[in-house]
Amino acid sequence: MDLKSKVRNIPDWPKPGVNFKDITPLLQDAASFRQMIDELATPYQGKKIDVVVAIDARGFLLATAVAYKLGAGVALVRKKGKLPYKTISESYDLEYGSNVVEMHEDAVVPGQKVLIVDDVLATGGTMAAAVKMVQKLGGEIIGISFLIGLSFLNGKEKLKGYEVKELLVY
Amino acid sequence: MDLKSKVRNIPDWPKPGVNFKDITPLLQDAASFRQMIDELATPYQGKKIDVVVAIDARGFLLATAVAYKLGAGVALVRKKGKLPYKTISESYDLEYGSNVVEMHEDAVVPGQKVLIVDDVLATGGTMAAAVKMVQKLGGEIIGISFLIGLSFLNGKEKLKGYEVKELLVY
Repeated sequence: MDLKSKVRNIPDWPKPGVNFKDITPLLQDAASFRQMIDELATPYQGKKIDVVVAIDARGFLLATAVAYKLGAGVALVRKKGKLPYKTISESYDLEYGSNVVEMHEDAVVPGQKVLIVDDVLATGGTMAAAVKMVQKLGGEIIGISFLIGLSFLNGKEKLKGYEVKELLVY
Repeated sequence: MDLKSKVRNIPDWPKPGVNFKDITPLLQDAASFRQMIDELATPYQGKKIDVVVAIDARGFLLATAVAYKLGAGVALVRKKGKLPYKTISESYDLEYGSNVVEMHEDAVVPGQKVLIVDDVLATGGTMAAAVKMVQKLGGEIIGISFLIGLSFLNGKEKLKGYEVKELLVY
């Protein structure tokens, strides 16, 4: 099935000029959902992934099913103030201002093989912050996988040196 | 494995007097994560679940892997303003004030068999709002499943008439 046919374009959301990719029709359709998770996970089968890092909040929707299929655990990257235990943090620049994301200091054990999964690669700021935190914790990043890549935003520039996969490229 | 041994108690979080159940150690451990998802999903195998409703944000972590195991799709309940398409909404009372959650108006198709999954049953306000929205959309609720039930908060009172399961009861 062509998964792109299940992605809905929402013009001018969340603000004028942005053409938002709504993945909810893709999630709702059981066959498309299964195909998507299988295509995200399959390249990493046999790579002994210990933990899949899930990014708040839409990344949670993909990463946990991928982890289940791979037989891995799940570690969380969350927005500031959402994690209850001791955290490490990274900030990254937005168009206006900046943002902070956090991980628990025990989310990844040194030497663990890590796959990071998120829904959309836009400018790459959030993912670059996630990469820095996983490195700080001593994880070995085997791959970075996105459902959607917005190629005109050049987010891959921020992720040089890593294996970056995008299932649906726009 | 005793999954409770992987739940971390965080005293006085997010505010004094609350003993927060941190499920991140349970998610991070691959064997515990798999056991948890299997135990959440197994009662609903063979029940022809069409869609698993996932509640923002920690519910996302459980519902999608459960949906993957059941061969179902995923529909989202999100906090106000997070969904890009046309929505329906429900409000529910908090200790102080109220909160609003939304679903896309096409998130559930009339007649679909629905399982709703969330991380914690506390007072039941969010889940009761989710139930109302699924009913409004014409879904048939087969079950409601929580990883954790806080029995002293009597949340089940708000969900009478439904099959409510809690994997870990406190």
